[in-house]
Amino acid sequence: MQCVKVLGGVLGAAALLGLGIILGHFAIPKGTDLPAPSASASQDLDLEILEAVMGQLDANRIRENLRELSKEPHLATSPRDEVLVQLLLRRWQDPESGLDSAGTSEYEVLLSFPSQKQPNRVDVVGPAGGILFSSQRSEENLTGEQGDPNVVPPYAAYAPPGTPQGLLVYANRGSEEDFMELYQQGIKLQDSIVLTRYGGVGRRAKAVNAAKYGVAGVLVYTDPADINDGRSLPNETFPYSWGLPPSGVERGSYFEYFGDPLTPYLPANPSSFRLDSDNASGFPPIPTQPIGFKDAEVLLCQVNVSVYNRLELRNSSNVLGIIRGAVEPDRYVLYGNHRDSWVHGAVDPSSGTAVLLELSRVLGTLLKKGTWRPRRSIVFASWGAEEFGLIGSTEFTEESFSKLQERAVAYINVDISVFANATLRAQGTPPVQSVIFSAAKQIRAPGPSSLSIYDNWIRYSNRSSPVYGLVPSLGTLGAGSDYAPFIHFLGISSMDIAYTYDRSKTSARIYPTYHTAFDTFDYVDKFVDPGFSSHQAVAQTVGSVLLRLSDSLFLPLNVSDYSETLRSLLQAAQQDLGGLLEQHNISLGPLVTAVEKFEEAATVLGQHVSALQKGTPNPLQVRMLNDQLMLLERTFLNSRAFPEERYYSHVLWAPRTGSVATFPGLSNACSKAMNTGPGSAAWAEVQRQLSILVVALEGAAATLRPVADL
Amino acid sequence: MQCVKVLGGVLGAAALLGLGIILGHFAIPKGTDLPAPSASASQDLDLEILEAVMGQLDANRIRENLRELSKEPHLATSPRDEVLVQLLLRRWQDPESGLDSAGTSEYEVLLSFPSQKQPNRVDVVGPAGGILFSSQRSEENLTGEQGDPNVVPPYAAYAPPGTPQGLLVYANRGSEEDFMELYQQGIKLQDSIVLTRYGGVGRRAKAVNAAKYGVAGVLVYTDPADINDGRSLPNETFPYSWGLPPSGVERGSYFEYFGDPLTPYLPANPSSFRLDSDNASGFPPIPTQPIGFKDAEVLLCQVNVSVYNRLELRNSSNVLGIIRGAVEPDRYVLYGNHRDSWVHGAVDPSSGTAVLLELSRVLGTLLKKGTWRPRRSIVFASWGAEEFGLIGSTEFTEESFSKLQERAVAYINVDISVFANATLRAQGTPPVQSVIFSAAKQIRAPGPSSLSIYDNWIRYSNRSSPVYGLVPSLGTLGAGSDYAPFIHFLGISSMDIAYTYDRSKTSARIYPTYHTAFDTFDYVDKFVDPGFSSHQAVAQTVGSVLLRLSDSLFLPLNVSDYSETLRSLLQAAQQDLGGLLEQHNISLGPLVTAVEKFEEAATVLGQHVSALQKGTPNPLQVRMLNDQLMLLERTFLNSRAFPEERYYSHVLWAPRTGSVATFPGLSNACSKAMNTGPGSAAWAEVQRQLSILVVALEGAAATLRPVADL
Repeated sequence: MQCVKVLGGVLGAAALLGLGIILGHFAIPKGTDLPAPSASASQDLDLEILEAVMGQLDANRIRENLRELSKEPHLATSPRDEVLVQLLLRRWQDPESGLDSAGTSEYEVLLSFPSQKQPNRVDVVGPAGGILFSSQRSEENLTGEQGDPNVVPPYAAYAPPGTPQGLLVYANRGSEEDFMELYQQGIKLQDSIVLTRYGGVGRRAKAVNAAKYGVAGVLVYTDPADINDGRSLPNETFPYSWGLPPSGVERGSYFEYFGDPLTPYLPANPSSFRLDSDNASGFPPIPTQPIGFKDAEVLLCQVNVSVYNRLELRNSSNVLGIIRGAVEPDRYVLYGNHRDSWVHGAVDPSSGTAVLLELSRVLGTLLKKGTWRPRRSIVFASWGAEEFGLIGSTEFTEESFSKLQERAVAYINVDISVFANATLRAQGTPPVQSVIFSAAKQIRAPGPSSLSIYDNWIRYSNRSSPVYGLVPSLGTLGAGSDYAPFIHFLGISSMDIAYTYDRSKTSARIYPTYHTAFDTFDYVDKFVDPGFSSHQAVAQTVGSVLLRLSDSLFLPLNVSDYSETLRSLLQAAQQDLGGLLEQHNISLGPLVTAVEKFEEAATVLGQHVSALQKGTPNPLQVRMLNDQLMLLERTFLNSRAFPEERYYSHVLWAPRTGSVATFPGLSNACSKAMNTGPGSAAWAEVQRQLSILVVALEGAAATLRPVADL
Repeated sequence: MQCVKVLGGVLGAAALLGLGIILGHFAIPKGTDLPAPSASASQDLDLEILEAVMGQLDANRIRENLRELSKEPHLATSPRDEVLVQLLLRRWQDPESGLDSAGTSEYEVLLSFPSQKQPNRVDVVGPAGGILFSSQRSEENLTGEQGDPNVVPPYAAYAPPGTPQGLLVYANRGSEEDFMELYQQGIKLQDSIVLTRYGGVGRRAKAVNAAKYGVAGVLVYTDPADINDGRSLPNETFPYSWGLPPSGVERGSYFEYFGDPLTPYLPANPSSFRLDSDNASGFPPIPTQPIGFKDAEVLLCQVNVSVYNRLELRNSSNVLGIIRGAVEPDRYVLYGNHRDSWVHGAVDPSSGTAVLLELSRVLGTLLKKGTWRPRRSIVFASWGAEEFGLIGSTEFTEESFSKLQERAVAYINVDISVFANATLRAQGTPPVQSVIFSAAKQIRAPGPSSLSIYDNWIRYSNRSSPVYGLVPSLGTLGAGSDYAPFIHFLGISSMDIAYTYDRSKTSARIYPTYHTAFDTFDYVDKFVDPGFSSHQAVAQTVGSVLLRLSDSLFLPLNVSDYSETLRSLLQAAQQDLGGLLEQHNISLGPLVTAVEKFEEAATVLGQHVSALQKGTPNPLQVRMLNDQLMLLERTFLNSRAFPEERYYSHVLWAPRTGSVATFPGLSNACSKAMNTGPGSAAWAEVQRQLSILVVALEGAAATLRPVADL
């Protein structure tokens, strides 16, 4: 069964290649003395090159990349992480298939590790103080990889050390509501140890919520109902299925923010100012430890949690490579993924890096042959220490703030490239929707159907667009991977692309072995994507998006797709907050006007683009228009909008805690003001947030209007 | 004597015109049907056009502009201010000499005015409560203009109302040191009225310093020693000389910040969120009133100060006009001045507006004839309500933040165009030095000498540059006029240009009738610039700078001139703070490295510019290079560097309060840390400021390096 799948995948891919075109296109003399491809300022995307790239992306090479990348655990800053840094460098500096240049940059960042001398432990203690039961210190060695001495024992990174002891209380997901309910039921939380399950709220939030009730320690386990569709027996789980074995423990960072904890807004260079770690914020307040469900079942009575985590300053590397643009080298299309994993990290993140390496190989080969050079520069990035809080990418944005803000066209993130092989899943800001759709329409979906990726996608996840009718549903960007600093801190149009589940077949919170020692090459090869055709499909989709962004004469960023988003956020505000605001004499009128102005300016600009595309625009006209498209996302930044939300400056995509699904600043402020009296500071904040929005939208509209309009 | 001067000035100007060239150049068919000038992407500055503009700038027209502008008082938002708005609009929409388009934008801003019903007053009160003496409510009507019913009585804008009474204490300039000295001498300040003189510290600072000692009210007078070189008799002062008459009172804004007090960081549109005025900060804490030196002499004993100022929301207009760029319409060279005055405002600000109107007339005429269109767009601006705190320009930058940050090449400010007629005076950031020098070398200085403006300037004010040898001294930008929001808030290369004093001939703090009812047309015509040749010289200098910025193929912004500035700031840090920092184990090494990196990148970029200029660069290459030059200033912004300094984000030009003349953040932080122990928060702030600087300089260097460097 698996064997057939592999063959089917490979044959399917081969059939997709359009070999004739490719052979034809490359039937030109080879050699390093070829003249450079013409750098004509009005050259548009070369469709033959695009086809060639699609054809050359090779599932088997991705598989071999993954095998190598996930062979050993490569926790951030570990020796194996450094080996992978060198692997990436070697690939990107290869004379036959490398980039123009590549290098590393290193940051000195604060990470958190379990002690090697004193393992973290969870013990059940009898009334006399004897230890009745001890949790396992590591996952069971089911396939050999779990016995690797470099497997980091399960721990909650950044949880403080401590050895609290207390009665165990089950606290569900550890949300505010969960604790409130326990409290109301009269259950004593003071000095207790709470057992919580992953999901619902963020990792650190469980400890923060618990600490408010005097809880002494927190355990977090993965519930089979949340991850395995209920299966929990050894013979139902890996290596017999993709299910998480009973001993599997999800590691993770329990740090609230992203970036190096000691250098917010500054690159973590050795000379940079560092907060004293006692003054750093965002860590869990009390000892916290993750455990497997095997252990969770047997915990009873008095529990002692021993956490010996310690903070360490470590050097973490990013690897960066560039292909210089032929015409506009000062415009950067960035494509990246993190490199570090909690353990072997075959799915997270090596499935993404395996794709990244294959795409850089194919493009590097075209480059070195002299067949092709992009119009704009392409920057490839392998980020370090993402698992601890997007640290490598964040430090990069802090260090390269000005260059990126001036010149970055878009950021493409592919972290986990394949969660499962049902459908494409893409998240991004509205301007990238059209380029993802264009790419997805061009490529055949993996598997037996002959649908395009787009047509397959729309079957699994769709929405009704007032402009386009039924379209696949593009998700919004949270802060789950390295795109976060690009979109939230720098206002760069960003996207995250993967292949994922059929949600009708599983309710797993995420793929079951996430952040455990069972996330291995064989796990991917046997259960996640046998044949690697989904990996190949992601490589093709991303390759197509990348080339369209780097090579199209007119940037394929459809800024008018923001109109639809703004209108829908506005409608939510009108419907769900309009009455409340009216009671407080706050008018949504200026916001309505601002949205209308945006819509109108975007429409007119769209007409201008169409007209220019039909004519023979000169290179400066194209550049000026592209600058408007590229910089639109920047106009939504306001560094003073959310002073308490570190790094979040984008007024449309900042975190929303309010219940109304509208503009986050407005939703959150209304939610806080709702129970305060007229004239309160909370109501003033609602008005301030409204003004910030109106000014941002009017400013955005102004940048879309003809450039010599006053 | 005055008559001869007028003739001399006019003839001198005429001789300078190079009429032959101009007539030759314009001996082409006229008419509105002329083909538009060619918009060649590689067209450089046209020297014949430049000469033509220089020749057509007419001293007599400037004089007539000034007569009209200063005919009546035109306090911000007064009916006459609105008349001038219409005048500017008419000029800029004139079919023969107007711009491409012009319009107004209105903001609703919080201003402060004296009460019409209850005049502010200062009374000397006898022991029995009788009034022994009352200060004059207005200036003496010496020339007719002072009797205009629209003259606003002297007052301290934004000072709170109140009627304190107390013993009068003379407090010199009202500095912290002045009050400390009085206190140490045992003089009772509690409940007193202090008499201070203008100068030394800011207006509001006098009241802030006084309030700390329990002072009940503040009087501020202009001392003849500070303004009139000691002359104080009626027949020694205006209308017999340029000296301030005894009854003259300097009005002024006593608001600490700039921009509308109720809408920091937001444009003051009607719908914008406004602080409650009780919550607004930056106003003087106690009643304050300015008086003339005539009154100051007689104040004795018990004094009662009655201040009835009130705050009012008013609509204030900016007038904006644009000449659309032929090749790069999305690049803006901005040139502006404020329009509002305290009274007739002939010098401040109409001398600047008179020049602005003449320059827009000459350029508008060339435009309407079809003779010329700039490469880049030129934006002319007449700001409202500057006198109350740079309000119109600040609101504009808040509203147009994104457009300006993306596209503004430079901002030129000419507020008072002529203080006196000895020499040019220019302030600006280092990149504008070269373009000002180029312009100043091209134009003959007014007066009998045959020196260029540059050669004349260097005689009055010079410095020894390590790079260029002896050069005129370019001043740095504070926050004294509308350039402040452009440089400090937006990071746009800015400059301020005027003609000014021979400092060996006067020690006047500023021109004597500043902000009084004696600042009239006749005052300028008779004493400040008879013949208006200095006005013409400023018009020519600014015109040349403007055209060089708008029309040069390569932007004439010499970014490597920042190297010299950085090196000198670094040396001051090393010499005057190095030892102290070493004692606290803080190394300047990273800062040294950052400065070196900047120097190197700037040098290499300079070589790149030279090479490109010699070759035949394509339009995109030029554009990419110009983007690097234009955006360099932006890289010095950090909105988180000085959280307590409203609007100040430029890490090199923020206000310096520390005594060491080095980078302001470092200087100020060291000054605060100096007397604290090791490990204090103040020393951590020193390190944070150093890191902010290092990151900014490294980021700046990165933007100057080849654009495809990693």
